[in-house]
Amino acid sequence: MAGRAILVTGFEPYGGRGLNPAHEAMRALDHRSIGGCRVIGRPLPVSLSRLPGEIAALLDEHEPDAVISLGLWPGENAIRIERIGVNIADFEIPDNEGAVAVDDLLSGDGAAALSATLPLRAIEAAILAAGIPARLSSSAGTFLCNACLYSFLDAIARHGRRALCGFLHVPYVPEQVAGLIVAARRDRRIELHQRGDLASMSLDVIVKAVEIAVAETATALSAQED
Amino acid sequence: MAGRAILVTGFEPYGGRGLNPAHEAMRALDHRSIGGCRVIGRPLPVSLSRLPGEIAALLDEHEPDAVISLGLWPGENAIRIERIGVNIADFEIPDNEGAVAVDDLLSGDGAAALSATLPLRAIEAAILAAGIPARLSSSAGTFLCNACLYSFLDAIARHGRRALCGFLHVPYVPEQVAGLIVAARRDRRIELHQRGDLASMSLDVIVKAVEIAVAETATALSAQED
Amino acid sequence: MAGRAILVTGFEPYGGRGLNPAHEAMRALDHRSIGGCRVIGRPLPVSLSRLPGEIAALLDEHEPDAVISLGLWPGENAIRIERIGVNIADFEIPDNEGAVAVDDLLSGDGAAALSATLPLRAIEAAILAAGIPARLSSSAGTFLCNACLYSFLDAIARHGRRALCGFLHVPYVPEQVAGLIVAARRDRRIELHQRGDLASMSLDVIVKAVEIAVAETATALSAQED
Amino acid sequence: MAGRAILVTGFEPYGGRGLNPAHEAMRALDHRSIGGCRVIGRPLPVSLSRLPGEIAALLDEHEPDAVISLGLWPGENAIRIERIGVNIADFEIPDNEGAVAVDDLLSGDGAAALSATLPLRAIEAAILAAGIPARLSSSAGTFLCNACLYSFLDAIARHGRRALCGFLHVPYVPEQVAGLIVAARRDRRIELHQRGDLASMSLDVIVKAVEIAVAETATALSAQED
Repeated sequence: MAGRAILVTGFEPYGGRGLNPAHEAMRALDHRSIGGCRVIGRPLPVSLSRLPGEIAALLDEHEPDAVISLGLWPGENAIRIERIGVNIADFEIPDNEGAVAVDDLLSGDGAAALSATLPLRAIEAAILAAGIPARLSSSAGTFLCNACLYSFLDAIARHGRRALCGFLHVPYVPEQVAGLIVAARRDRRIELHQRGDLASMSLDVIVKAVEIAVAETATALSAQED
Repeated sequence: MAGRAILVTGFEPYGGRGLNPAHEAMRALDHRSIGGCRVIGRPLPVSLSRLPGEIAALLDEHEPDAVISLGLWPGENAIRIERIGVNIADFEIPDNEGAVAVDDLLSGDGAAALSATLPLRAIEAAILAAGIPARLSSSAGTFLCNACLYSFLDAIARHGRRALCGFLHVPYVPEQVAGLIVAARRDRRIELHQRGDLASMSLDVIVKAVEIAVAETATALSAQED
Repeated sequence: MAGRAILVTGFEPYGGRGLNPAHEAMRALDHRSIGGCRVIGRPLPVSLSRLPGEIAALLDEHEPDAVISLGLWPGENAIRIERIGVNIADFEIPDNEGAVAVDDLLSGDGAAALSATLPLRAIEAAILAAGIPARLSSSAGTFLCNACLYSFLDAIARHGRRALCGFLHVPYVPEQVAGLIVAARRDRRIELHQRGDLASMSLDVIVKAVEIAVAETATALSAQED
Repeated sequence: MAGRAILVTGFEPYGGRGLNPAHEAMRALDHRSIGGCRVIGRPLPVSLSRLPGEIAALLDEHEPDAVISLGLWPGENAIRIERIGVNIADFEIPDNEGAVAVDDLLSGDGAAALSATLPLRAIEAAILAAGIPARLSSSAGTFLCNACLYSFLDAIARHGRRALCGFLHVPYVPEQVAGLIVAARRDRRIELHQRGDLASMSLDVIVKAVEIAVAETATALSAQED
C-alpha cells in the first residue's frame, strides 16, 4: 500500500441542527495528506442501531492505521480529547432514527470501558501550543459520541487490528450559537441567551486543531515503525 | 467637515495579560471608512485616575459623531452590547497603576446611571444575522469598562454634545484561553481547565462584529440627519 | 408610632413554578420582630401593570422605615444584594398576566437608574460571616424584580419619603431543582440535568440570610436616629 | 453475624480546606441502622499511596455487604451518583501527602474501568423524589474520588466478594462557598465571586440524600437474598 492512512470520521447533523462542525471539519480534511499520511474523511450516521455496522465496514474497507472520530459537545469551549469510552448507551434526546436508550450496554459481553490509544498528551500539548484551547476529558458522555469511541476501540481489539484510535469533541461554531440565541428569543425561552454560557469556536480553528491531532498521530505511527 | 467620524476606543492590556482583544479590534478598524464614516481608533489606559482626562481630550480633539468603546469581559461567550453605565467604581484587581476602588462614585454629583445611545437593537440584530453570538446586557460591571461607558456618556451630556455613545464587551480570543489552561496546569491550579467554562471568539469574528456595530451606527447617524 | 417597621415583600410564584422561595421567605418573617423593628411581610404580584399601584398602596398603608424586596434568580448560587435598579422593562417570558416587554421604560420621565439605599456592604458582610454565600450585584436584570426595585426607589423619592430601600435575589430551593431535573428528563430536554449548573439553597438558609439583612437594616435605622 | 452491614466512607479534608462535607456526612450516619442494615462510617485519607491499603483493611475487617463512598466535587450542584471508575490517576493539586499524578494507572494489570454495582437508578429516583437534586454521572474524575471507587470495585472483584459498591459526589456546604468568597476578595482574585458559579447544599440535605442511598441499597440487598 502506498503509505499510511488515517480515517477521520464526523457525525452528521442531529438534534434538529442543520449543521455539525464535526462533519464540516471531517470534510475539510478529507483527501489531505498530513505528516505523510492520507486522510480518509467519512461521515457517520447519528443512529445507535446503524453505528456498529458502519464502523465495521469502514475498518474493513480502509484498514486505517489510525482512527480519529469527531463529534459536537454543545456548550464546550475547548477541543476535548477523550481518554475513555464506556460500555453505556443512555440518552433522552432521540437519535436521527428516533431511538433513545436507558442504561443499555453497547456490547453485551464487552469490557466496562476501553481506553483511547491516540497519543493524547502530545495532541493536547500541540493544540495548546498553537493557541487553541484543549483539554483531556475522562468522559465522552453516554450518547452517540461515546458509542462511536467505544465501538471503534472494541472492533479494533476484537479483530486484532493495530490501529490507533480516539475521539475529539469540538465546540459549536459561532453561527450555531447565534442561531440558538435568535431561536430562544423567538420561542420565549429566555434561559439560553440570558445565561450566555454557550461557547463556540470558529470552524477554521477547529479544522486547525484536528489537523494538528492528525499530524501528531502520524508522528506516533512513524515512531511505532522505527 | 469632511464627513462624519466614529471614535472607536480599545483598552490596553491589563491584569497581567499581554494582549487585549479590544485593543486589537480597535487597531484593526482604525482608519477604515465604514458606512460613509471615518473610523478613528484610539487606545485607552486601564487607569481609573487617567480615564476622565483621556476621554475629555479625545472628545475635544476629534469631536466624533459617535463613540463605540471596546473592552474585554473574561469568560464571555458573545459580543455583549451594554445598555447602561452606572456611577460606581468597585474592583479588587488593581488597574494598571495599582489602584483599586471600593464603592466609589465615578462622578460626585452625577446620575446613578446613564443609558447608552447607540442603536443597540439594530446592532444586536445585525451581529446575530451575521452568525455571531451577541446579546444586550444590563450591566457593564463596576471596573474600568463601566467607568469608560459612564464617563463618556457623562462628558457628552455635560458638554451638550450630540454624539451617540455605547460600549461593547468582547470575549477572550482562543490564544488567551489556551494560555490560561497552560498556566493553570503549570501553577497547579486545576480549577480553570477542569471547569472548562472559558469561552473565546476568534479575533477576525470580533473585528467583524465591531465593524457591523460601526456600520449600524453610521446608518443611525444618517437617519438622524434626514 | 409604636416602633419602626420594615416592609419585606416577596413575589408570588411565576413562570409555571408552583413555589417561589422569595414568597416563602417573606411569609416566614412576617410578624417577626427583629432588631427592634416590626416586620411586615406582603406578597407582590408578578404583573408589570399592577406593580406600581401595589407599591404605592403598600407605602401609603404601612409607611415603612425600610423596604426589603425579595425575588428569585433562577440558577443563582448566592444571596445577591442588588445595588441598582434600571429604568428598563424587557422580558420575553410573560408575567402572570401574559404581558411581555421590549425595551420599555418603567417611568417615562424617570432617571436611567436609581441606587439601593440599604446598608449593602454591612448586609453582605453579615451574611457571609454567618457562612451563607452572598455578593453585591450591579444588575437586577430587566424583569419584574428590577421593576420592583426601581419602582419602590422611585415612589419613595417622588413622595419625599425617607425609607431605606433595596432588593435581594435568592436562589432556587433544592426541591425546585430536583423538580426541574425530573421535568427535563420527562420532556426529553437533556440540557438541564446534563449541565448541572442549577444551584440551590435550602429555605432555612435563605430565611436566615433575609433575617440578617433585616437586622442590619434595623441597625442602620437606629444609627440614623442617633 | 447479626444482620447486614453497609460501609460508608468519607474522605478527610484536603486542598487546604478545613472541612469536607463527605467526611461530615459519613460521621452523621455512622452507627445508624437504616433499612435493617448497620451503617459503619469510616474516614479515608486523601493519599494515593495509602488508599489501596486502607481499602483492603476496611474490607477485611468489616466484610461489608455494600460500600458507599463519599467525596466532595467542588462546584457541583447535585448529589452526583457515579456510574464508573476508571483506571487513571491524574491530578495537579497535590494530595495530602504532597503527591501528584500524571496519567498513572491505578492498577497495572487492571481493567480500563469498572462499573458501580449499587442500585444507581433507584437511588437517583428516591433522592429526586425527596426533593433533592441528583443525577447519574459517567465520570468520577481522575483524582482520589475516582481512585477510591475504582480501587474498591477492583478489590471486591479480585477477592470474589459480593459487596455492592459505588460512590456519591456531594456539593460544597454553604459555609465553604461563603469562605471562598471572602478569601477571593481578600486575595484580590475577583473571578470566584464575580462568576458566582459555586453551588452548595446544606449538610442536612446531603445527609438526607446519603441516608436515602443507604436505604435503597439495603432494599437491593434484601431483594438479592430473596
